[in-house]
Amino acid sequence: MQPDIVPCNQSETAEHQNDQYHCFPGLESRQPGCRRTDTDGSPFWRGRFLDLAVTPAVGAVTGGPTFREAHLIMEMFRNSGLVTSLDLVELNPFLNERGRTAVLQVDLVARLMGRRIIDRPTRSYKAMQEKLNIVPFVSVDHMMKLVLATGVERFLIELAAYIEEDFRRWESFDKTPRVASHSAEGVIELMPTSDGETYGFKYVNGHPKNTRSGRQTVTAFGVLADVGNGYPMLLTEMTILTALRTAAMSAVAAKYLAPKGARIMAMIGNGAQSEFQAIAFKAILGVDKLRLYDIDPSATARCQKNLAGMGFEIKACSSSQEAVEGAEIITTVTADKQNATILTDNMVGPGIHINAVGGDCPGKTELHHDILLRSDIFVEYPPQTRIEGEIQQLDPDHPVIELWQVIAGKALGRTGERQITLFDSVGFAIEDFSALRYVRDRLKETRLYEELDLLADPDEPRDLFGMILRAAKAAPVAAKAGAL
Amino acid sequence: MQPDIVPCNQSETAEHQNDQYHCFPGLESRQPGCRRTDTDGSPFWRGRFLDLAVTPAVGAVTGGPTFREAHLIMEMFRNSGLVTSLDLVELNPFLNERGRTAVLQVDLVARLMGRRIIDRPTRSYKAMQEKLNIVPFVSVDHMMKLVLATGVERFLIELAAYIEEDFRRWESFDKTPRVASHSAEGVIELMPTSDGETYGFKYVNGHPKNTRSGRQTVTAFGVLADVGNGYPMLLTEMTILTALRTAAMSAVAAKYLAPKGARIMAMIGNGAQSEFQAIAFKAILGVDKLRLYDIDPSATARCQKNLAGMGFEIKACSSSQEAVEGAEIITTVTADKQNATILTDNMVGPGIHINAVGGDCPGKTELHHDILLRSDIFVEYPPQTRIEGEIQQLDPDHPVIELWQVIAGKALGRTGERQITLFDSVGFAIEDFSALRYVRDRLKETRLYEELDLLADPDEPRDLFGMILRAAKAAPVAAKAGAL
Repeated sequence: MQPDIVPCNQSETAEHQNDQYHCFPGLESRQPGCRRTDTDGSPFWRGRFLDLAVTPAVGAVTGGPTFREAHLIMEMFRNSGLVTSLDLVELNPFLNERGRTAVLQVDLVARLMGRRIIDRPTRSYKAMQEKLNIVPFVSVDHMMKLVLATGVERFLIELAAYIEEDFRRWESFDKTPRVASHSAEGVIELMPTSDGETYGFKYVNGHPKNTRSGRQTVTAFGVLADVGNGYPMLLTEMTILTALRTAAMSAVAAKYLAPKGARIMAMIGNGAQSEFQAIAFKAILGVDKLRLYDIDPSATARCQKNLAGMGFEIKACSSSQEAVEGAEIITTVTADKQNATILTDNMVGPGIHINAVGGDCPGKTELHHDILLRSDIFVEYPPQTRIEGEIQQLDPDHPVIELWQVIAGKALGRTGERQITLFDSVGFAIEDFSALRYVRDRLKETRLYEELDLLADPDEPRDLFGMILRAAKAAPVAAKAGAL
Repeated sequence: MQPDIVPCNQSETAEHQNDQYHCFPGLESRQPGCRRTDTDGSPFWRGRFLDLAVTPAVGAVTGGPTFREAHLIMEMFRNSGLVTSLDLVELNPFLNERGRTAVLQVDLVARLMGRRIIDRPTRSYKAMQEKLNIVPFVSVDHMMKLVLATGVERFLIELAAYIEEDFRRWESFDKTPRVASHSAEGVIELMPTSDGETYGFKYVNGHPKNTRSGRQTVTAFGVLADVGNGYPMLLTEMTILTALRTAAMSAVAAKYLAPKGARIMAMIGNGAQSEFQAIAFKAILGVDKLRLYDIDPSATARCQKNLAGMGFEIKACSSSQEAVEGAEIITTVTADKQNATILTDNMVGPGIHINAVGGDCPGKTELHHDILLRSDIFVEYPPQTRIEGEIQQLDPDHPVIELWQVIAGKALGRTGERQITLFDSVGFAIEDFSALRYVRDRLKETRLYEELDLLADPDEPRDLFGMILRAAKAAPVAAKAGAL
């Protein structure tokens, strides 16, 4: 939406404080002296554009106010009593995807008028929710369609917003290390978590030799369930979704840790995760210069080809040394299951942010030990990262900072220009939970799911056997064959 | 099949030893002196009938040789060189369900001739296995159809055979206590296990208040996966399947623990699990006299109605005291989540087998403490049962016997006529694993599943992003909308 509506004095500095909307003193106190006028004398709000995560429309930029903040602004406008008229403009109806910006406009205007809008999901979604046996299922095909209909950038931005929201309320989650079943060939893991209202888990495998038989090294699916009644409410593929959430997570961390205004990223390892990383860093941080390196030049070529036409300036490098030259962010995302040294100490200059994605299980690391000693290390969940992350190379009491504390404003992220920051990413259940939540919320407005007959729902809850007997009547042939 | 084919002297005693087929000395040594002839002078094998689990055909009885044993017998026949001719008869083609007995006959004859038959699943199942993205899914509807097409009794008998098989190789499983997420309303659990080749887990909730909103107290689904590549190979509803496996498990335990020839069972608690228990005990032990009691007479009435015409003599009782009169087996399967006393000490006479199904989580027990002290207690997995079972009332070091040891012949089951045996059943992951395995094996011969597009399968395993790009080309509308 175009918020060219209402007067306001907005302080850029105060905006980044916690109670940032005390920066609208003119509205709060109704003192006319605080009002400002545009050049033509009419009152104006030089409003920051909404965040892209809120709506993909014109008037949305990365880092703009969130949905909740926009609501707060509207509430203050209302409380100010200064709003006398309102023009609503949609400059580019083409971007009003499935009525999304229109819905947002109505919602914000309602708030401005002191009213609330009731959420009305599509008829099919609502009807499905009333069928107790049905669980919506998002197949691989539907997930791709959801990503494409949303746009990869917007998907990553919105997903990042869900991750940030959940990291902010980190303390309200049940946290368990993943439940792993190891074998010679790989590992199968269950990653459960719960916020007390919703429960989620991901099934994920890691089998490095799978590519030899044309299979994925990592596949995954996930389930979201209602803590109140234990009923699953979403089953979805998560191979693609995990790639997206890993990239969104990296970009969220970099938002707090990378040098301000960083635009140049080296990416060492150009496999399945690389394009997602690149797009996430572009969408969320504005990184648009990539320096790629992979021991397999064909991987670099494919990554470069896949990213063509997306606004990147890409350089394929012939060594990791060359790739890191001039880079402000270094992303390592290699796949070999071994203690490798993708980065040596001399390659990391002051001020760099390292996004270490590839080292994510016992015996699999990417960075030289000495880099870790020079870095401030940020992690998701220390008990898990100390086993699986780069810091498995360090003493078990080596100081680390929990990323959620940075996001929640309880710890500092980047504090200086020469500081080396390291996000030792291994992937935690709460990120999958955010991703599941995001997909579930998106289903309300799309038809991109199937209905899965997953839960037995007898007419009388205690008569499970009677349900089978009644099914026999409905299918007399089977019953007649002496089956019962 | 009718194994009226070949001569053999079979010792009933030796048959129950480990290397039982050394009991065919005539075959092993080819000494003509060991041959026996029928009354008409022709050679014969007074072969034991095959186990019902192997085939539902005429010539199959519970406890007969298993599939593997039948193969071993054929192999020895072959080695003996004594087989000169063979008649194959199918007395009742009506029972040759979907060619099952025919396939078995061919298979055994092949072995007799020193050949192997290659397993050829139905074309649709085979085609599906070649699609890497597809996981077969058994919905509630398909599960009911599978149960009906199989027949509840046969389903329980075959499932029991799978459970026995897995209990016999108990030591080869990874065993973890379930991973539970508790809330005020109930619990959500993940129950994983693996035998090193196959991995399985069940998702199951327990929410006692659910019936108020027309929902099931317990719902479940499960997944089987290949340990070698981590790919899921079956997703199935498990609400119905869990009811079946719980009943099959109880009957397997009773097979080893109940008084020989027991036919009278008291069943206290006549809810969703009761009919399954009754049918399992009839199919596997021959129990055909039921004495029912429930605090809710309508539950008893429904159970009695559902079991009508299935060959039971049923008495609805007005108290649990009345129900246990004359019973040789007492099954307690009540639902209240509390420390209840369904059975008091005076109600349990000598020689009884107690099948305690209902007490299955902390704070939920059914038996008076004193009964436990008089009983020999058999459990599935002690670390779990001590928390969840009846024995949570006892000292943590109170002696118990692991049921698998009884089944594997490493411990004694019932040893005397006056002994009180108690199976303190709580349900363990390996039983779900057996149930998943059984359903998976049945899919090879049925079409009772859907194909779920659950796993991303890019043409080039490392090009996940490229797969999305190609999907965009296939769905140009979404891509055109500025989505990528």
